[in-house]
Amino acid sequence: MSVEGYESRIIDGKALARQIEDEVKSELEALESGRGITPGLATILVGDDPASRMYVRIKHRACERVGIRAEDHILPAETSQEELISLIDSLNKNRDVHAILLQLPLPKHLSPQEAMEAIAPEKDADGFHPYNMGKLMIGDEGLVPCTPHGIIRALEEYNVPVKGKNVVVVGHSNVVGKPMAAMFLNRNATISVCHVFTDDLKRYTLGADILVVAAGVKHLIKADMIKEEAVIFDVGITQEKDGVYGDVDFENVIKKASLITPVPGGVGPVTVAMLMKHVLKCAEKNF
Amino acid sequence: MSVEGYESRIIDGKALARQIEDEVKSELEALESGRGITPGLATILVGDDPASRMYVRIKHRACERVGIRAEDHILPAETSQEELISLIDSLNKNRDVHAILLQLPLPKHLSPQEAMEAIAPEKDADGFHPYNMGKLMIGDEGLVPCTPHGIIRALEEYNVPVKGKNVVVVGHSNVVGKPMAAMFLNRNATISVCHVFTDDLKRYTLGADILVVAAGVKHLIKADMIKEEAVIFDVGITQEKDGVYGDVDFENVIKKASLITPVPGGVGPVTVAMLMKHVLKCAEKNF
Repeated sequence: MSVEGYESRIIDGKALARQIEDEVKSELEALESGRGITPGLATILVGDDPASRMYVRIKHRACERVGIRAEDHILPAETSQEELISLIDSLNKNRDVHAILLQLPLPKHLSPQEAMEAIAPEKDADGFHPYNMGKLMIGDEGLVPCTPHGIIRALEEYNVPVKGKNVVVVGHSNVVGKPMAAMFLNRNATISVCHVFTDDLKRYTLGADILVVAAGVKHLIKADMIKEEAVIFDVGITQEKDGVYGDVDFENVIKKASLITPVPGGVGPVTVAMLMKHVLKCAEKNF
Repeated sequence: MSVEGYESRIIDGKALARQIEDEVKSELEALESGRGITPGLATILVGDDPASRMYVRIKHRACERVGIRAEDHILPAETSQEELISLIDSLNKNRDVHAILLQLPLPKHLSPQEAMEAIAPEKDADGFHPYNMGKLMIGDEGLVPCTPHGIIRALEEYNVPVKGKNVVVVGHSNVVGKPMAAMFLNRNATISVCHVFTDDLKRYTLGADILVVAAGVKHLIKADMIKEEAVIFDVGITQEKDGVYGDVDFENVIKKASLITPVPGGVGPVTVAMLMKHVLKCAEKNF
């Protein structure tokens, strides 16, 4: 269970996140001193799911670190769709709120899609609004989802070429898999998207120069499923009593990969840092 | 150069288009008699590119066949972006116009993207507006691009299962490749998107249960590049002095494929018929 000797292959998500946060900090200071604007993020949490609470807390802490003003809106689990939309409407109109983040998942009786669409596209820090998704799809990237954006940033940081490469994305969620594939396609990679209905996952993953796994299945990807020298991003998080696990069998896969993100400390922190970048972008554009 | 003995493998696009147009016709009659609404399509052509003129004419003829009222707006090649947007604005407001089609390509000095975005999403018969593209991407398909929609319809018509199948799309345009891949992904196929930067096209096409080719390269796909029993859609059109050619080497590939669209008479007529369906849909929703 040791990765001794392979440390140089680990993509250090925490270090990259710090670097991105430092960029945000200095741009933010320029925005404050130059135009007197302090970026503001409003988070909305419906209900008291402990994991969701934790994610919101992590985002608020990041806001504090970079100097973003953060509002914490917590609604009871029994909130109606109308009440949720009405809060979103008021935040859309609030000029001190430049970006809105609706923490998912919502309680079952609420429609996340309708709520997401109610967020003004220019305040859509998560990039989940259909308008922003469509812009991404046609290659005019504005506000894009944070996790895929962070992965693209990491590839740039580690000088991994994308154009013409064979990229495989495992998982076809709206949050990660689909926007990730679109971003690679915009950069002229050849992409494949696999998921729970894929009949021969290994045939695909074996061909991947770059592999992004967002399936939420502990250790789905084993060493015999990847190509030598592959670059691997592990978006999965499975919480068990004895720790947190990714979708990739890290200890064995690292011996074959050229670069790989750990779980935790890989994609997670970078995602949060990209969110800060998006809030800043919303504030810069909105006035 | 004969396909004798293989005729049953040909997807008859003309017949399918007639069937779709018949559906539109009867739904349209119900709409007229029931609610007094005659669906209206406004086409916009900028300049006098002969191919574009022909495409617009084909669409107008289809409108005539099914009973859609069609307006033909032809602007001179030197039209400014402002003039184009102003026409679109007036058509957006016109209650007799339920759907708007901007014929592409536009003259070089105009921005197709900005013009497309100016079209009201609910009148966007081609499904190219970012909002509609985004809805498609997140799996909530409303107005989607006509060619991919026609191909999905043909698969249904010929009882070809999609879920879990290996689908390869060649070409990553906003008009065909990207929305096509999204529609397959929404139906839980495993998808790969190849294009001009793909390093080993054959490796991908050989694995395809369903292959959609929209590269615009005459006879790009040869018999040795496809799997036995593959289902093949040829979206390519290359016009040469002696005829029109698709992206697939039809005469040889048909001997290996289980189903294949010819060029012409395959995807083309179905695309036009789907446009009629979309205009009808716009009219049904808009009042």
